Amino acid sequence: EIVSAIETALAEGPLTGRRILVTSGPTHEPIDPVRYIANRSSGAQGTAIARALTAMGADVVFVTGPADVARPEGAHVVEVETAAQMLDAVQAVLPVDAAVFAAAVADWRVASASDSKIKKQKGAIPAMEFAENPDILATVSQMASGRPPLVVGFAAETDDVIDNATAKRLRKGCDWIVANDVSPETGIMGGSENAVTLVSDDGAEHWPRMGKDEVAHQLAERIAAALG
Amino acid sequence: EIVSAIETALAEGPLTGRRILVTSGPTHEPIDPVRYIANRSSGAQGTAIARALTAMGADVVFVTGPADVARPEGAHVVEVETAAQMLDAVQAVLPVDAAVFAAAVADWRVASASDSKIKKQKGAIPAMEFAENPDILATVSQMASGRPPLVVGFAAETDDVIDNATAKRLRKGCDWIVANDVSPETGIMGGSENAVTLVSDDGAEHWPRMGKDEVAHQLAERIAAALG
Repeated sequence: EIVSAIETALAEGPLTGRRILVTSGPTHEPIDPVRYIANRSSGAQGTAIARALTAMGADVVFVTGPADVARPEGAHVVEVETAAQMLDAVQAVLPVDAAVFAAAVADWRVASASDSKIKKQKGAIPAMEFAENPDILATVSQMASGRPPLVVGFAAETDDVIDNATAKRLRKGCDWIVANDVSPETGIMGGSENAVTLVSDDGAEHWPRMGKDEVAHQLAERIAAALG
Repeated sequence: EIVSAIETALAEGPLTGRRILVTSGPTHEPIDPVRYIANRSSGAQGTAIARALTAMGADVVFVTGPADVARPEGAHVVEVETAAQMLDAVQAVLPVDAAVFAAAVADWRVASASDSKIKKQKGAIPAMEFAENPDILATVSQMASGRPPLVVGFAAETDDVIDNATAKRLRKGCDWIVANDVSPETGIMGGSENAVTLVSDDGAEHWPRMGKDEVAHQLAERIAAALG
């Protein structure tokens, strides 16, 4: 396994010499020491993208929330838990040639998170105040200087996938959005397949449903072509 | 593995002929199709208890929330996600000779859970209303008829463990409380060891820190003794 990791790390390919950031997995936002807000991202697609980029020679930094899937071999892995920690980790990784934000980052954190376990009291519902998390994709996309030449965001939608993703791309200021439909009936979130739409300056391109590894491979080839 | 499971299922011991319910793991309470509220229970202690009871000959029904640990061989496993589903499953399992409620059940659910993904809107924090979940331990402990002869609750505390557990036992109406300190610095939640205090009519008995398997074994022996 060590030899395989070294071979992967030394792979020569179209992305040799390129430093690429990939974020992946969910974030967990603590409510108190035992409770937290999570999301159903497995980290499978982000991990597959890190593997595909590494296999094409890229120097990949993989910033991941608490995901169950095995970490990609040959990538430099940074583990975080919350959105705020993820932004810090991302900023420490820059500059990069390309950044792929595949993590499902919590939009909100609990502003009133408690240091001790919140006790249940009859009839009393705990007050929970939320604060907006930093928008990592927008922050990096809109950097005045040092913005990565290629910034790729993800959109997990349940309705109006293309409209929402197109609007998201313009709002965030990223170059591409990889949009997918995470409605429970698709089985995509937590599953092994994905059906994505790549939204760029050129419009929306629908990719047929395929394995997450294959989506990762095709996206890595696009990234290599874009970086020249 | 199948042979081993059958052997376990057919184990003869002091609990042969006894039907015992064990709940385990966290519950997940949905916010929308992709987000949920979770807790850090790994399900390790509940699973170890189910194994120990099965090894002593009991017919174990294991009702578990979404936990990562392997399910106990030889037990009848029922998978649930939310507290409401867990109560339904528990009620369907009764009557039993003993019930061990080791699950970390969410006290609250999101009353305003959405069928589609909640969109982030600049400056707008989503309104989230909470409703109290059914109290499974209290419901079963206070059954007017058909109450299991032995009801064991768990208390995950971060402060004043014995005082809180003693009060919880009286408030819920269960026979025993297995209390543990889940402060992050103990490493118990998600770890392989536990340091518990068994609170009963006889008072509070502190057990030294030991492996979760050993806690399970000692608790199973106590249950066998109590059931005679």
